[in-house]
Formats: sequence, structure tokens, C-alpha cells
Amino acid sequence: MRIRIGAASAALAGLVAVASGQAQQVDLIVYNAVVVTMDSTLQVLPRGAVAIRGNTIVAVAAADTIAAAYTAKETLDAGGQIVMPGLVNTHTHAPMVLYRGLADDLALMEWLQQYIFPAEAKTVTPEFVRAGTRLALLEMIQSGTTTYADMYYFEEEIARVTREAGVRGVLGQTIIQFPVPDAKTPQEELARTEAFLKEFAGDELITPAIAPHAMYTLDRATLRAARKMADTYSAPVLIHLAETSDELRTSRKQHKMSPTRYLESLGFWGPKTLAAHGVWLDAADIQILAKRKVGLSHNPESNMKLASGTARVPALRKAGVSVGLGTDGAASNNDLDMFEAMRQAAFLHKLTSGDPRAVPAKAALAMATIEGARALQMDDRIGSLEPGKRADLIVVAAASARHTPMYDPISHLVYVARGTDVRTTIVNGRVLMKDGKVLTLNEADIIREANQFAARVRLAVAK
Amino acid sequence: MRIRIGAASAALAGLVAVASGQAQQVDLIVYNAVVVTMDSTLQVLPRGAVAIRGNTIVAVAAADTIAAAYTAKETLDAGGQIVMPGLVNTHTHAPMVLYRGLADDLALMEWLQQYIFPAEAKTVTPEFVRAGTRLALLEMIQSGTTTYADMYYFEEEIARVTREAGVRGVLGQTIIQFPVPDAKTPQEELARTEAFLKEFAGDELITPAIAPHAMYTLDRATLRAARKMADTYSAPVLIHLAETSDELRTSRKQHKMSPTRYLESLGFWGPKTLAAHGVWLDAADIQILAKRKVGLSHNPESNMKLASGTARVPALRKAGVSVGLGTDGAASNNDLDMFEAMRQAAFLHKLTSGDPRAVPAKAALAMATIEGARALQMDDRIGSLEPGKRADLIVVAAASARHTPMYDPISHLVYVARGTDVRTTIVNGRVLMKDGKVLTLNEADIIREANQFAARVRLAVAK
Repeated sequence: MRIRIGAASAALAGLVAVASGQAQQVDLIVYNAVVVTMDSTLQVLPRGAVAIRGNTIVAVAAADTIAAAYTAKETLDAGGQIVMPGLVNTHTHAPMVLYRGLADDLALMEWLQQYIFPAEAKTVTPEFVRAGTRLALLEMIQSGTTTYADMYYFEEEIARVTREAGVRGVLGQTIIQFPVPDAKTPQEELARTEAFLKEFAGDELITPAIAPHAMYTLDRATLRAARKMADTYSAPVLIHLAETSDELRTSRKQHKMSPTRYLESLGFWGPKTLAAHGVWLDAADIQILAKRKVGLSHNPESNMKLASGTARVPALRKAGVSVGLGTDGAASNNDLDMFEAMRQAAFLHKLTSGDPRAVPAKAALAMATIEGARALQMDDRIGSLEPGKRADLIVVAAASARHTPMYDPISHLVYVARGTDVRTTIVNGRVLMKDGKVLTLNEADIIREANQFAARVRLAVAK
Repeated sequence: MRIRIGAASAALAGLVAVASGQAQQVDLIVYNAVVVTMDSTLQVLPRGAVAIRGNTIVAVAAADTIAAAYTAKETLDAGGQIVMPGLVNTHTHAPMVLYRGLADDLALMEWLQQYIFPAEAKTVTPEFVRAGTRLALLEMIQSGTTTYADMYYFEEEIARVTREAGVRGVLGQTIIQFPVPDAKTPQEELARTEAFLKEFAGDELITPAIAPHAMYTLDRATLRAARKMADTYSAPVLIHLAETSDELRTSRKQHKMSPTRYLESLGFWGPKTLAAHGVWLDAADIQILAKRKVGLSHNPESNMKLASGTARVPALRKAGVSVGLGTDGAASNNDLDMFEAMRQAAFLHKLTSGDPRAVPAKAALAMATIEGARALQMDDRIGSLEPGKRADLIVVAAASARHTPMYDPISHLVYVARGTDVRTTIVNGRVLMKDGKVLTLNEADIIREANQFAARVRLAVAK
């Protein structure tokens, strides 16, 4: 792939000010960086800047052009670094960071039944969820994730902690047929979900969502009730779909059709719906997802580590399905680093298709940013650096030995960069991390508290 | 996998001193770390220490035991960190870091013929090789590689620079049939190789080797001459083997047999031989490699990125072949981070075998350390932390948000750690990097010089 290095041609809102000789006031200018916009032309500015007012990007252009047109309360020199849109993690279970590496190299059911379910039954409380979410948010901010989609229990606690930390979230209260830590019945869970949707309605950072766990853990009535509630509140729906061959077999046996077609038969698919995994989909399933405008969250690391299989990402994208990337929970990955998800997406589909041109760097980067935003139907607000969008952006170090030389910034972000290269993270115009220092969370306290909960987890699974 | 956390039971050379009330003098003690020994029992010391005298490990034990038995000129507190054997990269082409990301997402022949070969023809000189190798060494030291096997041109320059930087290398002078930057003919290359073997004979850090490029780029006479020279000098042999399906097809067409059997028919396979890639091997090929005690370098990232295929690593290991890990050159990876190679090896074989127990964390870590050393027939000296072995070890940060909690240090090293977590790198008892600062190379100068060569590379491939 040869990328296009743009000249100072980005759309400039308000450059009329220059003509009148007056510099406009903004709050923050990030300048001197290679700016990877992820706009529709994949424009890259070799020495660019981003001007931010309030929570909004007002201009993206050459550094000199921005300097002439704007004065800022705060400036951030990003020389030798790359500025890009914040990463969108379309599927995780934030508090499960507290189970990170608790049990690896096991088959899914052994892992769930011998470790995860017993640990969850004994340890998941509102306090646990808050501690785990804080730890997850710390890791997300440090590795450049600015928006994440989540499915877990006590999601209202996750939402409160996420809002405090300043991260954007599409947060789904989990609904499941059997008793779980935050509810005894799906009816109780539906009631909790409705309260959750009301509590966070209209929030600038938190989009409350409904998360029916999967077709194989819910009955028809509950799946229909979840869809109805989503329509009533115009809320997003998050669901696991066709993750394993077991799920496909179960669906065929019980319903004589695939999980996707079963959910279609229930009228489940609708707007603002995101399906996670989608490993075992046939062409007809893919057509249903495309027709219903369902977004797909591809989780290459989790799918590899648990030997779930390979989602048909090139076919899904060709069919017009918006495919975002996700890490899945850290208990099955084992981290929340979206750079790893990008690289893995590129590597995996080259291997399985036998074509080194499959999922090129620009596609992997798009899935982690603008296409992930589109899968969440948020691409009008986030996913690229363009005037009018929310100021969700990150600054990535690019001048170390490992980064040298840099022939192509987009290739570098996918094949060379790591979460640990992220230096600064900005969400909704607020600087959450500056030069490696997280400003909205207390790292030492969070790690100490996490280790206290980990001691309880160890006891919970001790034989 | 459940790991065994060892008590203070590591073999202790010289603890007789304690009985007599006298502490022995050593040069360096690294203490307070979780010590992952990679010895034959995979012993892990929860709060251990390593005592080093000269270039040799004299003791590995509980921190308190070491403190009682030894006094050291220098001590290094590794609290909250992991100490482990230095990583062994069994296949790379160090100077190719200068082509990192030059051209991605292309089929192998397009990549070679349109970018790499033209760039090499126009830019590879002794100066280029030295600059590229310094950049590669910087990245290796920073990411915890202490031994590497290399195949390139002007390998004597690579050897000189590697010795200066203090890294251990099995460095192979490339022999190839067509004119290359350091020789016009294979005869000339054989002569250069012989001089190279003599120059570095008996060197403590550098093991000079012979690197016939591949069966498809050399004629019978040259392959036989390379083997003869290896026998004469007891030198290691490094060769690419069965990397792509093209190579297999070519071999079958020209020789009516697989690349492995063709080389067997020439009497090529012998002791101290390492074959890189080995993607397209059948059961009979694997038996030949096992019988001839040929080591194999598995390069999961390169094989995925170039869509070469998946080496049959579980079958190779089951047959008794020693399998190490390699990054391949940074032009096809795009970095030299062995932590990525470990994680990828674990992920890849779970996916392709459909078994999440395939290549568990302990196997991936073994391949990157002791088994890689065995593939190079150096496991008597390196690859694990045991008294009497060379002091090649690294200290890995393990207390950040991403590392929290840590239930299992071996799982963490494979599924969570990155090259960027390495804080201290010691080779042959010499501290090459301390707390993130490389001591044997000037980072700023090397990066500046690399960027100057990169400008020439850009010109060389400009259309």
C-alpha cells in the first residue's frame, strides 16, 4: 500500500478569521505531529495540528496554518509523534481485568465452568466491578482507547466510574436467563436495565445499552423483551453472536437454523445493534446482518486464544457490514490493547485467506477507529479527526529505535506501534493522560485495590 | 496451566560458604524479583535472586538465601519485576530494520522484486550494514533479546558491531547463487565466509556461521561446498527451508522431491544446522529433521504477514525437533520483538489446531529461551537461569495496570508482556541496558544515522 501524504488541504472551519487578521481563540492545539486523520480520503498531514474548542475539533490542518488562524489556552507539542483518532474497542467486559491470566490454555467450557463462573459467583459485587473497571480504564487510557463497548453485571457502576474517568462508553447491562451476581431472574435484569437506561439518558459520555448475553443463554420471550425495550428507549443492543461452533450446533439442533437466522425469526435484529464475534456465519447470515445494518465486533485475539475460529471479515466488509475491532475481556486475551487487535486482524486474515493483501494496514486502522465508530452508529461524532467531531484523539510516540525508520505512518501504527507507545489521550476535549501520566485516575491506589480483589479471586478458585 | 511456584530449592553453587560463615564475593546480584528460571522443572521463585560472577551465573535462589551467601560489587533491586533468561531470536536479518515498513501488504514476490531487491542493490554497503545492525541491536537490547541468529551480507560487519554492543550472535555469512552486494559469485562468497569463520573463531560472543540462503537459490555444488566448509570448521549452518508453497512446488518440479528430502539427498543436513520457517513440511520431512538433529526456527508473525502458511510446530516438537522462535527481518514483521513472537506462536497454533491447549504459555516461553538455545545447540551455555550458565538475563516490568493482577508469571510473560516492558538486559554478565537506558550504544546517534540511510532507501525505490 502506498499512502497519500496530504498537503495542508484539510477542511478548516473558521479560517475566515485569518482573512480578517484575527486569530480565533480555542482551548487546545496539538501540533507538530504527523496527523493521521482517518477521514474518507485517509489524509495524512506530515506536520499537522488539531485545534480543539470545548469538546469539539474545530480544525485539522498543517501546523503553520493552525498557528496562523488560532490562539489556544493550552498547546501540546507532539513533535516526532503521531496524532490519530482515539481507538474504539467495540467489545469488552471491563471488570474481567481482575481475572486476567487466572486460567489460560483451556477449552472454553473448562475455562468458564472451572474458573470464571465460580470466581464470578463468589467475587462479583458492586465494589469489585468498580475496582475492576477503574483498572480497565487505566489500561484503556494508557493504551489509547477513547470509546469502548461493554457487557457486564452492575453496568451502572461501570458507567459511573467511566464517566468520572472521562472515557466514552456504550455500556450494556447484561441480561441472562440464569441467576447472576446482580439479578436472580431475567425479569429482574430487565427492570435493572430499564432503570439504567433512564439514569444515563442524554449523557454526553455514556450511552446506556441493553446487552442480552447470547441466543443460547436466553429464551425467546426475554430476547423479544430486550428488543422491545431497545425500541422504546432508542437504545443500542449488544449481543454475543456465533462465537463458537458449539453455539452453531446448539442453534441448529434446537431451532433448525443458525443463530443469526434464529434471531431474525424473532424480530431481534434492529437498528443500533452490535453483534460480537460472528465467527460462524454463512453467506445468508452475513446478508441478514448487512440488511439489518447490524455492526460486527471482530475479536481476533480472543478468537485465536480460545480456538473459536476465524470470522469472515473480508466477506463481511464486502457485504457492507461495518466491522469494528474488540479485545474481548482481559480474561481471554489477556489485555485491552487495541494496537494488538489491529495487528492481529491484519495478520490473521492474510494467513487464513492466503493473501498478503487481505486486511491491509489501512483497513485494520479503519476498523479500530472510523469503522468501529460506524459499527456503533457513532461515526457522526467520533472515529476520525475532522472539524465538528468530538475531540477524541491520541498522541503516539514514533521516534524510538523500534519506530525507525518510518516510511508509512499508517503501516507503522498497525505493524509497529503498541499500546505502550501512547503518550497522550484526549476524550471529549479533556486531557485524560498527558505525556504518560494519567490525570483522571490514581494509578497507585487502583493497582493496590486490584491486588486486594485478586487475593479474593485466588481464594475463590483454590481447589 | 497451573505453574509450580518453587521454594528456595534452586541448586546453589558455593553455599558451603554459608556453613563456614563467609559470604562469597560476586560481581552482580539481581534480587527481589519473581525469577522464572526455565530450568527443566520450570521452577519459578516468587522472591528470588540471581548471583553473577564474571560472565557466569553462580547461583539462583530465594533472595534471602542469596543475600546470606554472597556479597556483590553491584546489586540491582528488581522488586515488582520478573527476571528471566534473555530471549533467543533464532532467525533475523538485522540490517533489514532499515527497510522496516518500506512496503507492506504485498505478495512475497512483488515485495521482493519491486521493493527489497532494488533497495538492496542500490543501498547495501558495509556502512549501511553497520548502521542497520546498530539500530537492530538497539531494538533487541531494548526488547530483551540477548542472542540472535542472523543471515545477511557483509556479516563480518554485523559481527563486529554486535560484539561491540555486547550481544551474543550466531551470525551467518550469506551464500547465494546470483551477484549480491558483498560478492559477485558463490565462490567469492564461500571465500568470504571462510575468512569470516577464521576471523571470529573462538570468540566469546560471536559464533560465526555459514548461511547458504535456500535450496532454490543455490546449485548442488555450492550447497555441498557449504556443508563441507561447515564440517571443516565445526561451524553452524543456517538456511531457509520450505518457507512457501512456491518453494515446495519448485523443488518437486526440479528434483521430484521436497526441499527437505532434496537437501538430505545432497548430504546437506548435519550437526549444528538450523532451518528457518519449515512451513511446508510433511511427516517424512519432519522425521529427517529429527534424525539429523536439525533445529527449526519458527517465525509466526512473518509467516502470517506474508501469508506463507502455518508451520506444524506441535508435530515438529512431538517428533523431537528443537523449535526456537524468530522474528524474521523487520522488513517482514515489522519489528524484532520476541514477546510478540511468543504470543503469536501460542495464538496461531491454538487457532489452526482448534485446540486452546496447543502451545500453552510454558511452551511458547520455552521456545523463546531454552528450546531456541537447543535449536542452536547452545543450551549448555544459555537459555535458562542455572548455575554455570552464561549470565544472559533480562528484567521485565510487571506492576503496571496492564500487568495487574498477576496470577501466573509464565502466562503473563507470554500473554501480557511486551518488548517495551523490558527494563534491564544483561549478556555474558555485562549490563547492556539498565532501567531502560542502553549503555553500550548511543541511541540518538544511531537513530539519526538510520534516518539518513532511510532517505537513500526512499530514493532507491522511488518510481
